[in-house]
Amino acid sequence: MIHHTSDVQSTKVGKDTRIWQFCVVLPQAVIGDDCNICANVLVENDVRIGHRVTVKSGVQLWDGIEIEDDVFIGPNATFSNDPFPRSRRRPAEYTRTRVRKGASIGANATILPGVTVGEHAMVAAGAVVTRDVPAYGIVVGNPARITGYVDANDTHRLQAVTHPSDSAPQPEKYKKITELAGCFVHELPKIEDPRGNLSVVEFQKDVPFEVKRCFWVYGVPGKEIRGEHAHFECHQFLMCVAGSVQLVLDDGHDRAQVSLDRPSLGVHIPPMKWGIQYKYSDDAVLIVFASHLYDANDYIRDYGTYLHHVRQLRAA
Amino acid sequence: MIHHTSDVQSTKVGKDTRIWQFCVVLPQAVIGDDCNICANVLVENDVRIGHRVTVKSGVQLWDGIEIEDDVFIGPNATFSNDPFPRSRRRPAEYTRTRVRKGASIGANATILPGVTVGEHAMVAAGAVVTRDVPAYGIVVGNPARITGYVDANDTHRLQAVTHPSDSAPQPEKYKKITELAGCFVHELPKIEDPRGNLSVVEFQKDVPFEVKRCFWVYGVPGKEIRGEHAHFECHQFLMCVAGSVQLVLDDGHDRAQVSLDRPSLGVHIPPMKWGIQYKYSDDAVLIVFASHLYDANDYIRDYGTYLHHVRQLRAA
Amino acid sequence: MIHHTSDVQSTKVGKDTRIWQFCVVLPQAVIGDDCNICANVLVENDVRIGHRVTVKSGVQLWDGIEIEDDVFIGPNATFSNDPFPRSRRRPAEYTRTRVRKGASIGANATILPGVTVGEHAMVAAGAVVTRDVPAYGIVVGNPARITGYVDANDTHRLQAVTHPSDSAPQPEKYKKITELAGCFVHELPKIEDPRGNLSVVEFQKDVPFEVKRCFWVYGVPGKEIRGEHAHFECHQFLMCVAGSVQLVLDDGHDRAQVSLDRPSLGVHIPPMKWGIQYKYSDDAVLIVFASHLYDANDYIRDYGTYLHHVRQLRAA
Amino acid sequence: MIHHTSDVQSTKVGKDTRIWQFCVVLPQAVIGDDCNICANVLVENDVRIGHRVTVKSGVQLWDGIEIEDDVFIGPNATFSNDPFPRSRRRPAEYTRTRVRKGASIGANATILPGVTVGEHAMVAAGAVVTRDVPAYGIVVGNPARITGYVDANDTHRLQAVTHPSDSAPQPEKYKKITELAGCFVHELPKIEDPRGNLSVVEFQKDVPFEVKRCFWVYGVPGKEIRGEHAHFECHQFLMCVAGSVQLVLDDGHDRAQVSLDRPSLGVHIPPMKWGIQYKYSDDAVLIVFASHLYDANDYIRDYGTYLHHVRQLRAA
Amino acid sequence: MIHHTSDVQSTKVGKDTRIWQFCVVLPQAVIGDDCNICANVLVENDVRIGHRVTVKSGVQLWDGIEIEDDVFIGPNATFSNDPFPRSRRRPAEYTRTRVRKGASIGANATILPGVTVGEHAMVAAGAVVTRDVPAYGIVVGNPARITGYVDANDTHRLQAVTHPSDSAPQPEKYKKITELAGCFVHELPKIEDPRGNLSVVEFQKDVPFEVKRCFWVYGVPGKEIRGEHAHFECHQFLMCVAGSVQLVLDDGHDRAQVSLDRPSLGVHIPPMKWGIQYKYSDDAVLIVFASHLYDANDYIRDYGTYLHHVRQLRAA
Amino acid sequence: MIHHTSDVQSTKVGKDTRIWQFCVVLPQAVIGDDCNICANVLVENDVRIGHRVTVKSGVQLWDGIEIEDDVFIGPNATFSNDPFPRSRRRPAEYTRTRVRKGASIGANATILPGVTVGEHAMVAAGAVVTRDVPAYGIVVGNPARITGYVDANDTHRLQAVTHPSDSAPQPEKYKKITELAGCFVHELPKIEDPRGNLSVVEFQKDVPFEVKRCFWVYGVPGKEIRGEHAHFECHQFLMCVAGSVQLVLDDGHDRAQVSLDRPSLGVHIPPMKWGIQYKYSDDAVLIVFASHLYDANDYIRDYGTYLHHVRQLRAA
Repeated sequence: MIHHTSDVQSTKVGKDTRIWQFCVVLPQAVIGDDCNICANVLVENDVRIGHRVTVKSGVQLWDGIEIEDDVFIGPNATFSNDPFPRSRRRPAEYTRTRVRKGASIGANATILPGVTVGEHAMVAAGAVVTRDVPAYGIVVGNPARITGYVDANDTHRLQAVTHPSDSAPQPEKYKKITELAGCFVHELPKIEDPRGNLSVVEFQKDVPFEVKRCFWVYGVPGKEIRGEHAHFECHQFLMCVAGSVQLVLDDGHDRAQVSLDRPSLGVHIPPMKWGIQYKYSDDAVLIVFASHLYDANDYIRDYGTYLHHVRQLRAA
Repeated sequence: MIHHTSDVQSTKVGKDTRIWQFCVVLPQAVIGDDCNICANVLVENDVRIGHRVTVKSGVQLWDGIEIEDDVFIGPNATFSNDPFPRSRRRPAEYTRTRVRKGASIGANATILPGVTVGEHAMVAAGAVVTRDVPAYGIVVGNPARITGYVDANDTHRLQAVTHPSDSAPQPEKYKKITELAGCFVHELPKIEDPRGNLSVVEFQKDVPFEVKRCFWVYGVPGKEIRGEHAHFECHQFLMCVAGSVQLVLDDGHDRAQVSLDRPSLGVHIPPMKWGIQYKYSDDAVLIVFASHLYDANDYIRDYGTYLHHVRQLRAA
Repeated sequence: MIHHTSDVQSTKVGKDTRIWQFCVVLPQAVIGDDCNICANVLVENDVRIGHRVTVKSGVQLWDGIEIEDDVFIGPNATFSNDPFPRSRRRPAEYTRTRVRKGASIGANATILPGVTVGEHAMVAAGAVVTRDVPAYGIVVGNPARITGYVDANDTHRLQAVTHPSDSAPQPEKYKKITELAGCFVHELPKIEDPRGNLSVVEFQKDVPFEVKRCFWVYGVPGKEIRGEHAHFECHQFLMCVAGSVQLVLDDGHDRAQVSLDRPSLGVHIPPMKWGIQYKYSDDAVLIVFASHLYDANDYIRDYGTYLHHVRQLRAA
Repeated sequence: MIHHTSDVQSTKVGKDTRIWQFCVVLPQAVIGDDCNICANVLVENDVRIGHRVTVKSGVQLWDGIEIEDDVFIGPNATFSNDPFPRSRRRPAEYTRTRVRKGASIGANATILPGVTVGEHAMVAAGAVVTRDVPAYGIVVGNPARITGYVDANDTHRLQAVTHPSDSAPQPEKYKKITELAGCFVHELPKIEDPRGNLSVVEFQKDVPFEVKRCFWVYGVPGKEIRGEHAHFECHQFLMCVAGSVQLVLDDGHDRAQVSLDRPSLGVHIPPMKWGIQYKYSDDAVLIVFASHLYDANDYIRDYGTYLHHVRQLRAA
Repeated sequence: MIHHTSDVQSTKVGKDTRIWQFCVVLPQAVIGDDCNICANVLVENDVRIGHRVTVKSGVQLWDGIEIEDDVFIGPNATFSNDPFPRSRRRPAEYTRTRVRKGASIGANATILPGVTVGEHAMVAAGAVVTRDVPAYGIVVGNPARITGYVDANDTHRLQAVTHPSDSAPQPEKYKKITELAGCFVHELPKIEDPRGNLSVVEFQKDVPFEVKRCFWVYGVPGKEIRGEHAHFECHQFLMCVAGSVQLVLDDGHDRAQVSLDRPSLGVHIPPMKWGIQYKYSDDAVLIVFASHLYDANDYIRDYGTYLHHVRQLRAA
Repeated sequence: MIHHTSDVQSTKVGKDTRIWQFCVVLPQAVIGDDCNICANVLVENDVRIGHRVTVKSGVQLWDGIEIEDDVFIGPNATFSNDPFPRSRRRPAEYTRTRVRKGASIGANATILPGVTVGEHAMVAAGAVVTRDVPAYGIVVGNPARITGYVDANDTHRLQAVTHPSDSAPQPEKYKKITELAGCFVHELPKIEDPRGNLSVVEFQKDVPFEVKRCFWVYGVPGKEIRGEHAHFECHQFLMCVAGSVQLVLDDGHDRAQVSLDRPSLGVHIPPMKWGIQYKYSDDAVLIVFASHLYDANDYIRDYGTYLHHVRQLRAA
């Protein structure tokens, strides 16, 4: 069960444990039964691994690390044993790091020296664990923070209704009227007054299509993206009358980004242009004038499909 | 009807008007019929008082002050006629201060020179009025701010029409909720989504006129009033897509107040209705669809003139 | 004692009362003994003035106003009796306004119709009083807000008892700090911990009565007063576990003010002590343990009635 | 010149002074020449009124009040002389209230006992003055706060000199912008950098005196005024390196106001110029370079004394 | 083109593809033409790699991962295929992770299972990708957030001034009375009043045990956890009277989470239930009524011990 | 000393250097003496590694990377050399990345291309380094930010010198508190006043050099570092008059950190001391008095050069 390319110097490897390609196991290491040690794993001397442990590729277990039964260690998860390392200055004793029974260390997580990861805890992929993780805790981020607990079956995140939160608006630069990726940016008149401001659109003069519908989008969490579709037939005219939003325009060939950050900007998106809105500020209200009533069949929601149609149109 | 302790030098005092103890009325003053001038009131020369006016004790009416019919002036209410007074420096001409028909000045209020208090307006006791008060407006505090409007019977504060709160179920379809003072309140469909909300107006179906112009008003300081006019011909459809604003609707006979406090309310104001917007929240954005392009001649900006036209129309 | 320039039509003017120049007193008015009515004062018919009252110049007392003994009314202080005045529209009955025994109305203050100013209360110069003022309260501003209470000698603002600041060492044990106006201030144990703080009450050991009920008060606007009552039988134990609140304690003889500004202070209010809470901070949460279930009959809500019961108890 | 309806008991009324209807003047009162005392005014005994003073109707001047020359007192403006009045409890001595030469008290203003209103100051109509008003200061509201200063001709509010906003291009070099009331406004070089900004003064090149001392002023509550003095010998150079502050400059003849609202402005105040700083923003830090070490004898703290020295210097 | 030290078991390796030292490629893997597979790479069976793909050292491609043409995968970039990995619990089917045509995965990035990285998207070095990346999107950070889009030439970031944004806590939903994990959630009466709110507990009626002790917890940093224990005998009744806190309830079998986010919620935790509080808001105050005085021996603080006791109880 | 499983093609491997299992070293690579290259390390051609360097497992050193003497590189620490990688699009020249003498790269850290990590700097485990790290700096997080500096012995985080808090008594006089790394910390007099505070420096008495220039630094983003230089001749005197800033002082031998967190602290930095300012609060304003006018030639901006000059001076 030990691949011939590996250099396993320890004799304390348990029953049914498999060790794959290019591993190194030093003589004092202890490995339990029924483990799975994937390719490219290194195990130093002062290391104890329990039973039924999985260690994925790219992991090193340094002196001072203890892994209990049923632990999972994801690929490239990284341990260390010196909290303030300098080349060739070795601490008198290595800090001990413990991973308790049933815990799971996510892919590419970093575990700082001296930390204990509790029973059945779940360290998210990419987390940088700087302090102890309680039993059943789920930790995420850099530095890792608890974001929830594992449910009774130990297979899901405990449900709690979470609400997203968002970002304050930032003004962007003033932009002149221009054409971008087949769409048209307009500066609308703005009448400033100490008693309040006013902007105006005259439909027959300013909007290059007959308006049949007006809708507005608001209360969009800052991390959401809206749009991400094209229309076969419908024209749209977008204005952000409060807050701000970023607009990506795409005609299948050119792409451009517009910051709708003041009420006097308007963007005309003709049919067969791909549009994305993102970075909505908390208070953003996006007004859209449309040339058609709502029709689900007028939407192209897949970018590949959209590109396919663009190419067909160009060929035609 | 003039108490013997008073020094009334004017002969232009109307029929049935009573003047009580210790008053002074200078020779050029004009006082209408059926007034009640309480003890300790002083009236200078360049002063005109209408009919059926009550002036309580401790009030002085200085040169340049005009009081129209049916006005009430509370005890110790104080006027002045020089905006930057210095002893023995008299301005070339006194600033004119006007209290319009039916208005009421509260006890111990202070009215700064040059101010006009509109028809049927109500100045609260102790208020310090530093700018014009619109017709039917109620003002309070130091400096005085508008806190409401008087109802059509002119005896109570106008009640805002309240609507089911934002958390209540939203109609899937456009719906006319109510008619108020000749105007129409609509509930627009609202489509809620964790990724943000969307409301919609379909022009030919939902808006009862052809939309030729759209404008939006924003950045209005909370103390400002907008609107305060009627149109001869233009229809308007108002929605407050961010924040909130109070709408006063008036057809010259009935008056009503609507709280535009969510994006899915729309109000249709037909021509020849008087409209006022006030109590803008900081983040308010008011969208207006209009049936006509801008035309200065279509505006009636004076409430007296508006009532005159309404009466003519009714007579016709 | 009545100046010859005055027009005093009432015969019910008490002994030793002086009335100065240019006053008007209508026939039904009642004025007590030993009052001082300064020049330019007007008193209507349905007015009752107690003994030893001072009314300074420029004051009018309209129908419906009652002034109890020992009241001071400053110059140009202004009353009214119609909450929504219009010329020549007289209310069926005038709102009644009361100024209780020993109260003081500052110069140029405005008192709205229907208000009661409590015993020994103090209305600051220029204040606009729009709601009742409690006994001993001091009110300031437009609109007037309570800023303090008068001390037992009724000549100064009550000083809050200050305690060692939160950063000072905290007792490990429950400790009685002081007795004030028949009530008891306790310092509760506080266990500080980087993971958060904890305070504790053990009912049988620390609270000098059996607790039958616990309630908490929160979301109190800063301008509101709560409490303002005494109990016949119920003991209360108050703690402010968040924010801060001012507590006025009164045994009918002495008065004291305590600042509940940290979670480890507790105040025991025995029965037959008058208590007031005011100056709630926005985030204040006041917890009350009570010795009895709620019983409306156990409350004394009128300060005069309370004093009456205190006197009876002392006599007994 | 004294109306027959008035009760004037004093004989110390100056030449050309007119006293109108229904006034009361007690025997010890002193009134200067050429005054105008309108109807319904009361003057007690311990009162001294200067020359050319105007007192409008409804005003009472109580024992302890001093009115200097050229003062204007608006209608129903109200004074008092007891800070904690109770009926029939008279203070041993009345608090003294002073209105300095040329000041103006607005209609219906309230002046608390013990206050001094400075030379040429302007109290707005309806203001409630609870603390001293500096010379030339304009105060507004309840409680009254300084909102500006009067200009050199004493007839208008002083306009702040505005400078190009912070977003405008900044000079690379130190630059004298303007001279105001004998003081000098400089623009200091500002080096902008995404890593933070830097401004610089080179002492021998930029500052027109040898710097012996540097002090900085911070944590000033917005309602406070600082400065209000002149120096006999000391030069000062002021910069506001955080927040903003208003600077009033006065050479005894001209007056000007400068808004120090960015770190790159510097103002040189030579000796014998009167300087005031007010409207500190919460975060304001004012740096002052001075040509002399601190010397209490170098300060002139009274504006009247300052004017006296200026006049002497000019005469010399 | 395959280095002799590598263990390449698949025969489906395309033309001109190079595989360097110490690689492992399992038999079912499919690799396209002209790829560059650097040293120390591992490729499992259910993996499909397109043409012209670069895979740098230290990368493992697990079952379920699809790499389209022209993808770049930086050194030590880490994939995984189980969103909730536990040792030796293999999901029925591996989540599929897709890297679309032309995308680039930065050095040491972490890609969570099930994610799709869109066409030409750019994952920054060190990013932790927790959700789909749209076509052309650039993602950065932990967790990775979209910070921009790639331009049409796919070589630069689309220019827009980007600002960071932050998150504020959001309240949770109202919940009806219920039983959760053997504990009981109560809605307490709340008496709302414009003068402030009041909630109440009557001990004998509302609390299902005799209360002997009350303590409150406050000043808990948001990242801290409290509780994390069970009691053998003591009942607890928890209310969060200010701010909010998350409560985890656990009976050894079921687990639930409750958001205590208003003062009128109460949770009864009977003995032998495991409770945890976390996500304290800054202003949170948690009140606890307990049925017993403090007794250290009544606490079970270790979750393993707790489970042991639960099992014993069930067996009994 | 080279393990037989490794593929080491270079001959430029220094004396006593050990290379463990499964490493790859390309022919042009240069490796110094006494290094320790752990298992699974890859070294490309254009790479230069100094003496006494430790490289832990899972690290790749790509073309363009330079590692100076005594560097420690933790396990799975990841470098890259292309800032915008796409498969098979190779940049004309690889960006160069440098790790200076004595620096330490934490486990699983990510170093972006083009970055320089300064002498003895410490990159925390899991950090994502996106910009240069100064000498002795400690960086943490994603993206990595400076959180401190290493002490003179290079083994601990530098402790900030704390001073008596703002509430402690303040000296009336200028006072030298301490000497740190050849610099001098002074307490300046602070005059507290309810109307605002004032601090003062008298130049000839308090500042130990003649001040020729004053500049101030403000608007510094919190993540920025300023200073990082020494002067040959110029003395500096630093005060933080608003907000706070951390000051690192270094004489080439000792290092110390001072927290400038109140306006009354001043620090004198003589010539030939290395100074750094960091952790600016948002509102920080740092005032600097300098003994010389600006002279670019007086600056030493490179720490290595600085140390060289210090050594020369000591030798002299």
